[in-house]
Amino acid sequence: MLYLVGLGLADETDITVKGLEIVKKAERVYLEAYTSILLVDTAKLEEFYGRPVIVADREMVESSSDEILQNADKVDVAFLVVGDPFGYVNTSHHTTLTLRVGSGFSTNDIMISIYRATTHTDLVLRARELGIEMRNIPNASIMSAIGCTGLQLYSFGQTVSMVFFTETWKPSSYYDRIKQNAEHGLHTLVLLDIKVKEQSLENMARGRKIYEPPRYMTVAQCAEQMLETEAERKEGICGPESLAIGAARVGAVDQQLVVGTLEELTKVDLGKPLHSLVLLGTKTHELERDYIRRFAVDTATFDNIWKKHYEAKS
Amino acid sequence: MLYLVGLGLADETDITVKGLEIVKKAERVYLEAYTSILLVDTAKLEEFYGRPVIVADREMVESSSDEILQNADKVDVAFLVVGDPFGYVNTSHHTTLTLRVGSGFSTNDIMISIYRATTHTDLVLRARELGIEMRNIPNASIMSAIGCTGLQLYSFGQTVSMVFFTETWKPSSYYDRIKQNAEHGLHTLVLLDIKVKEQSLENMARGRKIYEPPRYMTVAQCAEQMLETEAERKEGICGPESLAIGAARVGAVDQQLVVGTLEELTKVDLGKPLHSLVLLGTKTHELERDYIRRFAVDTATFDNIWKKHYEAKS
Repeated sequence: MLYLVGLGLADETDITVKGLEIVKKAERVYLEAYTSILLVDTAKLEEFYGRPVIVADREMVESSSDEILQNADKVDVAFLVVGDPFGYVNTSHHTTLTLRVGSGFSTNDIMISIYRATTHTDLVLRARELGIEMRNIPNASIMSAIGCTGLQLYSFGQTVSMVFFTETWKPSSYYDRIKQNAEHGLHTLVLLDIKVKEQSLENMARGRKIYEPPRYMTVAQCAEQMLETEAERKEGICGPESLAIGAARVGAVDQQLVVGTLEELTKVDLGKPLHSLVLLGTKTHELERDYIRRFAVDTATFDNIWKKHYEAKS
Repeated sequence: MLYLVGLGLADETDITVKGLEIVKKAERVYLEAYTSILLVDTAKLEEFYGRPVIVADREMVESSSDEILQNADKVDVAFLVVGDPFGYVNTSHHTTLTLRVGSGFSTNDIMISIYRATTHTDLVLRARELGIEMRNIPNASIMSAIGCTGLQLYSFGQTVSMVFFTETWKPSSYYDRIKQNAEHGLHTLVLLDIKVKEQSLENMARGRKIYEPPRYMTVAQCAEQMLETEAERKEGICGPESLAIGAARVGAVDQQLVVGTLEELTKVDLGKPLHSLVLLGTKTHELERDYIRRFAVDTATFDNIWKKHYEAKS
C-alpha cells in the first residue's frame, strides 16, 4: 500500500494519530521536500517518528518513482507531504520557465508551468499502473487553515500564486485572476513563492546541479509586487488602499496575523517563513470586520479605509 | 487558554498528535455538534481520549458561551470542531429562515442566513472580550481534502452550499455563484446539507424543542436538485451533460469517488454520509482527466462528454 500522509503546517506534532501509526509501521518513509517546507527539520521528524526518513527531492520523485514504489504492492510505503497531500502548503507550484511574448503591457506571459503539485498526482497514477493500492491521510492545508483570519471561506474565489519578480520577469496573470474574484466581491488567497533547491537558469541550462540558497517570499515583498503590477495595469484591483491580511506561520505557536493596506503591509516584518496573504474582497460580513480589526497595523486607518471602500459594498 | 481543536474528517484517529495532547490535559472538553458530524460517535471519542467530552449543541454555544469560557483565563478549555475549526466540514451553514419575494422565476430568495460557522467566530470574539487567550489547532477540512479527487485546488472558484429543497423553497442563489465560477472555467465544490437537531418551522415558531431525525443530503439528491434548477434557469450551468464528481466519506477507509454526468449521478448510491460534489469547470488539465477517468460511472460516456464539452475548452 502507498500511503500519502499529510503532515500539517507547523511542526512534527501536527501529524494525525492515524498518520503517525502508518509512519511508524511502514517499510519505507519518504519526505517530499520540494513543494513546501515544514517549520522543523528532518532530524526532528526522525526523532519524533523513531525511525529514518528518506528525503525525496523533486529529481527523485520525477525520475525514481519506481524506486519509491518498489514492492509497495506487498509492503507499506509512506510518502509524507507537508500540509495536505493534495492540498499543497504554499508556494509557486511552477518551475520558472517562462516566455514573454510581445512587448509592453499587452504582452502575455506564457508560463510553461509544470505544476509541481501534479508530481504527487503523477506518483499516484504510476502506482495505479503498477497495481499498487493507495490511501490518502488528509491534514491541514493553508487553503483551509487560512480561515483562522476570521474570513469566511465561502467568500474566497480562486487561489493564486505570487512568484518572485525579476528585472525582466514580472508575470501578472495572477492579477487577472484576482480581478475575476474581485468582480464578485470575493477574497483571494495569495500563496507566496518558495525557492527550495532551485537551480539558476544558467546552471539548469548547463545541467549543473548547483542550487541557490532557499528563499521564501515575505508578505511585504508580495505587497510590494502587487503594487508594482497595479501601477502597470491601473485597474484598481490591488492599489495602495486595498486591504489585505498578512499571515505568518499559520498553525504554529507564533502564528501572526496583520491587517493593513497593501501600502502599510510593504513595511511590515512578519518574521520567519512561511507567509501568505489574503486580498480582501468587498463582499464582507460585519463579523469578519470585527474579527480582523484587532490585527490592524493602524486601527484608525483601517476604520477609515473600511468605511471608504468596503462597508456595505457587497 | 481556549483551544479550538480540529478533529479532521473521518474518525477518532484523525486528530493531530498536538490536538490529542491538548484534549488529554484540558480542564474541560466540548465537542461542537451542530455544523457537522464526524463519522464516529461521541462515546468512541471519549474512549479514545480517556476522558469525558461535553457535547455542545447550537443552543449551548449560542446562549451559554460564558459557561464554556468560564475560567478559561486560568485553565485550559478545548473546543473540538469536526474538520478544521475555521474550515467547516460540510453542510448548509444556514438556518432555514427564508423569505421568498415575488413570484415565478424572477423571485429572490432572501435568505436570513445565520451562518452557523460564525458561531465559532462569535465564541472567539467573546473570549477576546473576556481577555481569554485563544489558540487554533488546524486539521483537514473538506475544502482542501477535496483535492483527493485529483482536481487542482487552484482551479476551484468559490464554494457553495446546497440545501434540501422543499415543495415551496428551492433557493437557487447557488446557481449564480456556480455561474460566476463557470465563466472562468473554474470547478465548484458543493457542500451538501446536513440537518442535525433541526426543528420544523412549526415547532420553531411554537418554541417546542422537538427535533427532526438527522438527514444528510446524498450526491444523487444534490445532482437531482441541480438539474431541477437548471430546468428552471436554462443557462446551461449544470445540465444533464455537465460532469461532476461525487465524493463520499473523504479521508475514511471507505472513501468513495465517482465521476459522471449529473444525469448519471442522480442514479448513483454512494452509501453513508458525508457526501460532497464537485461540478467540473472547463479549465481542466489532462492530468486531471487521467486522474478522474478511472472513477467514471461509464468510461465511454465520460470520454464522449469530455471530448464534447471539456477538452481544450480552457
